[in-house]
Amino acid sequence: MARLFRQAAIIGVGLIGGSLGMILRRKGLASSVVGVGRRIENLKLAVKLGAIDHYVVDAKEGVKDADVVVLATPVDTYQRHLEEWASCLKSGAIVSDVGSVKGELVEQCERLMPDGVHFVGAHPIAGKEKTGVAAGSEDLFSGMRCIVTPTKQTDPQALERVRTLWQEAGSTVLTMDPLLHDKILGAVSHLPHVVAFALMGALIDIRTEVPSLDLAGHSGGGLRDTTRIAASSPEMWRDIFLWNRDNVVAFIDAYERSLGELKQLIRTGDAAGIEKALERAKQEREKFPVRTG
Amino acid sequence: MARLFRQAAIIGVGLIGGSLGMILRRKGLASSVVGVGRRIENLKLAVKLGAIDHYVVDAKEGVKDADVVVLATPVDTYQRHLEEWASCLKSGAIVSDVGSVKGELVEQCERLMPDGVHFVGAHPIAGKEKTGVAAGSEDLFSGMRCIVTPTKQTDPQALERVRTLWQEAGSTVLTMDPLLHDKILGAVSHLPHVVAFALMGALIDIRTEVPSLDLAGHSGGGLRDTTRIAASSPEMWRDIFLWNRDNVVAFIDAYERSLGELKQLIRTGDAAGIEKALERAKQEREKFPVRTG
Repeated sequence: MARLFRQAAIIGVGLIGGSLGMILRRKGLASSVVGVGRRIENLKLAVKLGAIDHYVVDAKEGVKDADVVVLATPVDTYQRHLEEWASCLKSGAIVSDVGSVKGELVEQCERLMPDGVHFVGAHPIAGKEKTGVAAGSEDLFSGMRCIVTPTKQTDPQALERVRTLWQEAGSTVLTMDPLLHDKILGAVSHLPHVVAFALMGALIDIRTEVPSLDLAGHSGGGLRDTTRIAASSPEMWRDIFLWNRDNVVAFIDAYERSLGELKQLIRTGDAAGIEKALERAKQEREKFPVRTG
Repeated sequence: MARLFRQAAIIGVGLIGGSLGMILRRKGLASSVVGVGRRIENLKLAVKLGAIDHYVVDAKEGVKDADVVVLATPVDTYQRHLEEWASCLKSGAIVSDVGSVKGELVEQCERLMPDGVHFVGAHPIAGKEKTGVAAGSEDLFSGMRCIVTPTKQTDPQALERVRTLWQEAGSTVLTMDPLLHDKILGAVSHLPHVVAFALMGALIDIRTEVPSLDLAGHSGGGLRDTTRIAASSPEMWRDIFLWNRDNVVAFIDAYERSLGELKQLIRTGDAAGIEKALERAKQEREKFPVRTG
């Protein structure tokens, strides 16, 4: 692969940012990768692990010569970051991100871009329970999907370079409108997380009524699978739920209706109605591929 | 292992009944295992696979000389079965079952036992998506839990023989009151199934509003895990929900409260409240063993 960028800067060198740094460096996609962060020990570890060439604590210093800057911090921090250093970016620079929400977040980032600097939103879908650069790997995104979310304002060349970056990382790159991204991810990812977090919450509540209920001891495969994602990062999911609030609330409404209908069928003993509802769910579930990215 | 039973009869030679037959025969726990069913082709297959020694279609014929009869048909059929042939059982015979609900079902079975015949409820917990005797195996229950549910009426010797049977099958045998069984399984198994079925239902509904939502194509690991059990048997789960109706409805109520609280926190943008709710769920989920039976 020809060199895609001269200098790359990664803001937040954790699991995702660190893995991206490893890919940029080891595939020769960038001549140099600088990491920006606050925790010196973590940045030193990132250098040791080959995720970045060097690090700086002063973000302005880190981004001023960069061709590409990737925001890999919690989405709630983007505004603070961009207000701090976007004005230092050189003309032609690309700012991208790895956030799990897009819609309003992309609008916000575009508003904060100086003239001549291009924003391209991206969402690499790499679910890993682990966090931190130590869990990073240049294979993290291999075989996974990455959704890029251009708008009318997006520079076509900048978009193409970001697409190439994620293709080189081994991902299947999909292009999607930012607002549609949040609808679709709201349905297939954010709603299931709400459902799983709420299920654990309900079981804790039920245990106060059934004290001999030992959740860990009595958990079978069904419960374990259904609640696996309830062990996800509370900070990250707090931000996702808030940034995609309208879709998430609307989809919880739809879910409450579906649940209420099933409850009513069970409460009234409508055997045929229950079987029909379960059959409909089963048929749709069986269309899922057995294993994908 | 000394012979535990002379003749064993299995009513319903599917995945569970067939696997139990393999264990009884191959471990020498019974001198002879007769299968009772309606589908001749399936019964012939069961003989070929070594799940039973021979079969009969007339249940009365099958059970009259049995020391132990195991009901391995859908729980809704128990009454019909017992009314048909319980009066033919010999004195001292044991009737057991493998049903996923206990409470009222055990009461019903006890009411239908003739004098001198002992009922012992059992629930081997073996979750397999597959069905049918062809998927059976003598290892199916190995390392899994089996809950036996004696009542005040249960004969201690009959209980001990059923416990021994499941220990010989490789299971960890737990003893539990039938009503408590239904509360605990209602929480850790039946509620998660409701949650998963309702989630698939909601996603189908949401797709009518977001036509570009391709559930199979957009499904990631989180959605796949959360909905895995929505592919379970509609007939079996219809019966479980109805037989454990009071607990299931009460636990759906508790779940609706938990979900409603989380929705309210998201809707009002209560970042600290959301994080607290997710952290509570995460901490409880992290207590689950990584993998158990």
